[in-house]
Amino acid sequence: MATGNPLFADRETSFLLWQVHDLPSLLTLPAFRAHSPESVDMVLGAVRRFAREVLLPTWRPMDQDAPIFRDGRVSTHPLMKSLYPQLVELGLLEAVRPVEAGGQALPWTVFSLASVHLMAGNLSAYGWLGLTLGAAHLIEVFGSAALKDGFMRKMYAGQWTGTMALTEPQAGSSLADVKTRATPAPDGTYRIAGNKIFISGADNDFAENVVHMTLARIDGAPAGTKGLSLFAVPRLRPQGERLVDNDVQVAGMIHKLGWRGIPSLMLNYGERGDCHGWLVGAPHRGMPQMFQMMNEARIMVGLNGVATAAVAYQEALAYARVRLQGRSLTEKDATRPPLPIIEHPDVRRMLLRQKAVVEGGLSLLVATSRQSDLAAHGETPQVRERAQLLLDLLTPIAKTFPAERGFEANALAVQIHGGYGYASEYPVEGWLRDQKLNTLHEGTSGIQALDLLGRKVPAQGGAALGFLREEVDLTIARARGAGVDAAWGEALRSALEHVTEATAVLATAGMEGNVERMMLHAADYLDMLSVVAVAWQWLLQAAAAQEGLRRGPDVFLEGKLRAAQYWIHTELPRVALLAQLCRSGEESYARIPADGF
Amino acid sequence: MATGNPLFADRETSFLLWQVHDLPSLLTLPAFRAHSPESVDMVLGAVRRFAREVLLPTWRPMDQDAPIFRDGRVSTHPLMKSLYPQLVELGLLEAVRPVEAGGQALPWTVFSLASVHLMAGNLSAYGWLGLTLGAAHLIEVFGSAALKDGFMRKMYAGQWTGTMALTEPQAGSSLADVKTRATPAPDGTYRIAGNKIFISGADNDFAENVVHMTLARIDGAPAGTKGLSLFAVPRLRPQGERLVDNDVQVAGMIHKLGWRGIPSLMLNYGERGDCHGWLVGAPHRGMPQMFQMMNEARIMVGLNGVATAAVAYQEALAYARVRLQGRSLTEKDATRPPLPIIEHPDVRRMLLRQKAVVEGGLSLLVATSRQSDLAAHGETPQVRERAQLLLDLLTPIAKTFPAERGFEANALAVQIHGGYGYASEYPVEGWLRDQKLNTLHEGTSGIQALDLLGRKVPAQGGAALGFLREEVDLTIARARGAGVDAAWGEALRSALEHVTEATAVLATAGMEGNVERMMLHAADYLDMLSVVAVAWQWLLQAAAAQEGLRRGPDVFLEGKLRAAQYWIHTELPRVALLAQLCRSGEESYARIPADGF
Repeated sequence: MATGNPLFADRETSFLLWQVHDLPSLLTLPAFRAHSPESVDMVLGAVRRFAREVLLPTWRPMDQDAPIFRDGRVSTHPLMKSLYPQLVELGLLEAVRPVEAGGQALPWTVFSLASVHLMAGNLSAYGWLGLTLGAAHLIEVFGSAALKDGFMRKMYAGQWTGTMALTEPQAGSSLADVKTRATPAPDGTYRIAGNKIFISGADNDFAENVVHMTLARIDGAPAGTKGLSLFAVPRLRPQGERLVDNDVQVAGMIHKLGWRGIPSLMLNYGERGDCHGWLVGAPHRGMPQMFQMMNEARIMVGLNGVATAAVAYQEALAYARVRLQGRSLTEKDATRPPLPIIEHPDVRRMLLRQKAVVEGGLSLLVATSRQSDLAAHGETPQVRERAQLLLDLLTPIAKTFPAERGFEANALAVQIHGGYGYASEYPVEGWLRDQKLNTLHEGTSGIQALDLLGRKVPAQGGAALGFLREEVDLTIARARGAGVDAAWGEALRSALEHVTEATAVLATAGMEGNVERMMLHAADYLDMLSVVAVAWQWLLQAAAAQEGLRRGPDVFLEGKLRAAQYWIHTELPRVALLAQLCRSGEESYARIPADGF
Repeated sequence: MATGNPLFADRETSFLLWQVHDLPSLLTLPAFRAHSPESVDMVLGAVRRFAREVLLPTWRPMDQDAPIFRDGRVSTHPLMKSLYPQLVELGLLEAVRPVEAGGQALPWTVFSLASVHLMAGNLSAYGWLGLTLGAAHLIEVFGSAALKDGFMRKMYAGQWTGTMALTEPQAGSSLADVKTRATPAPDGTYRIAGNKIFISGADNDFAENVVHMTLARIDGAPAGTKGLSLFAVPRLRPQGERLVDNDVQVAGMIHKLGWRGIPSLMLNYGERGDCHGWLVGAPHRGMPQMFQMMNEARIMVGLNGVATAAVAYQEALAYARVRLQGRSLTEKDATRPPLPIIEHPDVRRMLLRQKAVVEGGLSLLVATSRQSDLAAHGETPQVRERAQLLLDLLTPIAKTFPAERGFEANALAVQIHGGYGYASEYPVEGWLRDQKLNTLHEGTSGIQALDLLGRKVPAQGGAALGFLREEVDLTIARARGAGVDAAWGEALRSALEHVTEATAVLATAGMEGNVERMMLHAADYLDMLSVVAVAWQWLLQAAAAQEGLRRGPDVFLEGKLRAAQYWIHTELPRVALLAQLCRSGEESYARIPADGF
């Protein structure tokens, strides 16, 4: 591995926070009064150092020696014993909690940028922390005081870890079919019985206990998702002063293509009839409660995708600068020394495409996190409601784009390494393997597409798309003011018109009750809106870059302009084609007989 | 693994040979007089059975237990000891050789279809055979009678294996920088000294000997590729009745992401100064000789790509038919049984895309192989010359398209499996890993793009593109005659006009000496021509399908029409965008400063 992989350039973070996304205005909100530019830089600086110096060197060892499952327990890589306490020590578990609850009241905007560095350093190691955070957060929002005191505090303290236990063997993307049962017990808890699969981090040997946030159906509950309730089910349950076995067993381990530092496990609940679950929130409210947290989890997956593409991009970039091979197309003299491959146009193309995906995707995630901060802490109800709708709209895009295009970017990082890229003596093949999970977990790309077109776009009469247009218009105006090529803004405006027209056609189909027709090209619709959203982010970055270039030449900012140009010239024109597919309802895959494949 | 994966449907092969590509007309050529439809079916039937029943079950064991390198020798998977003789037994090593040379005079058109089944069954196992075939073929065409008798015969007989030893650590894609030296020795052989890397199959424990077809530079030879000569360098060299060590040592093994059944090795030649090499062909003619075989090797890689995407497509298809999950979008009753996921539109989209890539790619490879047969055995010099130019033009496309889009198709096969797709308990993740090599070996995709636009298109004043237009026009006429939607043919014609216009702009830049400008979008040009070539193949298949449907309903043929429709409606419109990039010379990656990434 090239030493000194920066994961992201130092300037990337500061450019996004201070030049592009106007963090200072966010810091004026009362909720964030504890923070200043200095405190934000301090948090990010510490996290970045840890990610580069401590986490990154542990990634390959943990990839090579995956956890071992034996006698019902999991042994994780020995490195995790020291890594986990250090990760907790960084303070991110409680970073976004309010100050009054003992947290740091850090904006999600900053937290996302901090997290993405840890993920880029070691995705699996971060996974343990991220899952614990999500699980503890569920208890914090919906749990009883007793659960907060008994479970949540230990999770935030790093003493216990957490998981999300939703999926079952027969019900991957279809939570309506969850079968795990919960039977009320006289002591006020429930007896849980059932099986879960693909539960990441469901056992380890570095923390005292693990709490599975489990979806189950209380006896007599309705069918479908509206009969699901949320339970906290610890591996060991408190009994007086002791922790005793809670009858939730690891039944098997799945061997994964990547993310090999954190195991994916099967769980059997209640084989002895003695698995206690604590209801979190109200009965039958499991799905809405989960959904409330889903934005968070999906943004985290988007960050995973950016992180995994980013570290590979930086590796490919460093390799392209030192690897000498071949000569320019016009050099006929084979005795002349070879060039660094970064000089070859096709290598530059592959690097610029990676840059556009990584930095465009990261900017989109920062923009999305910013809406999350405004949704929770904006000054007026109007601001908060608008931000919530934008957050809801952007989330499936911010989850899917980095996963799908990140995989493509990771493949380009392999390609730049030539045959070496295919060898595990170099790291890029490993990040390609890691990346593939991100199109699958926390809702596959297909599920995200249905969510976007079926729920997020129609919400409140299509208000979110109107707000997105407002944001884009502001960006176009800012870019024009900064002196960015006006054609770029026009191209974005025209692409958004394609989106508007296609949406109107689909909405009409939906209102006429033709739901199949409306949703047939949901994947193309998501692709279309992703290209537009990233073009918006690139125009925004171009505006900030052009503003910065007034102060003199700056190669970093020049690079931003070229990446913006690339995306707007090369990707944005696809929007017209995708809109045409949506509008026309191109029907080949609807029409082909199932036996005609 | 789903039992009964057919690799390809039985009807796929017969449809392509008899309905689409008119094998009977090829069989009328004198060179192929030994064959009849019956003999062709017999060859294909035997190979197909072997691929399905013998090879496919060996793929995962060989993936899981890669060869071991110890004490300078390689131990392959124990299965290879019985597999290799069985592969040889199938008769493919000598299948395309003329009858008078002891072969079967099988058309490449048929040989490609036979090979692709073996590759789909076990890519690595086939690799040993394919490399031996390529190496023996080089000796057959360029080698002396003594080499044919001493080396080639044993390779064809399966007693010895062969390799291609081109790449060196400092010269991956840049063969001009090959440094391996060849010093004439008094006995008429040469003493070889140097290092090679990424040599697939360079050692094994199931064959008596291995012959490395090695590019090296005779002392005093010119710099660059024009100073390279080709040598046969066996691991053991004949000395009287014995075989003695020839001082070419395995220096290390590369651990690969996929193709784990065949090792990638580093070779050190002549560390003791005792490595004998036999010149093959004329001195300094190594590159042109290699190039003469390159079409063959590149078509083989294209077939690798199709094969690896095909077996995964069939697996995903079988899974989608049995996996029950979710309900239709309009079904509100969660107590109704779930559907097989093949009923969900997004799953159908992913399956149809795979089908379009796999079967479109295979048809293109059959078309390319057919030109190879005509180039060698066509009845007149005009026919042969035209076919050679078409073969040259189509080869970089037929190599790259299945590799690049096949990787995308393999990722879709994973996606259809959901979380299971990411687990090595299911096979699809393994084929995804296998596929990635195909964009790298035998010339990366970037090298193919330069070859297409820099060599193949300009050859003979651009004649090849004219011949392609003729072929496309014939197809459009056939489709119209069969009653295929006329708009499909019009769309293809219009796409080809885009190609023509873009080519004219680039040719002008080239003639004005602006080679960088001409080649800047070589990758987009290759992408563009690939989409068109595959659309051509889909229109051809649509014509054949429509002809067949006159005889009555046929769900297989209906599927072909829908896949054609998909490609023409969904992919072909991209040609206009790619042509625009080529014409405009969009310059973002040319302009970005190297430090601006």
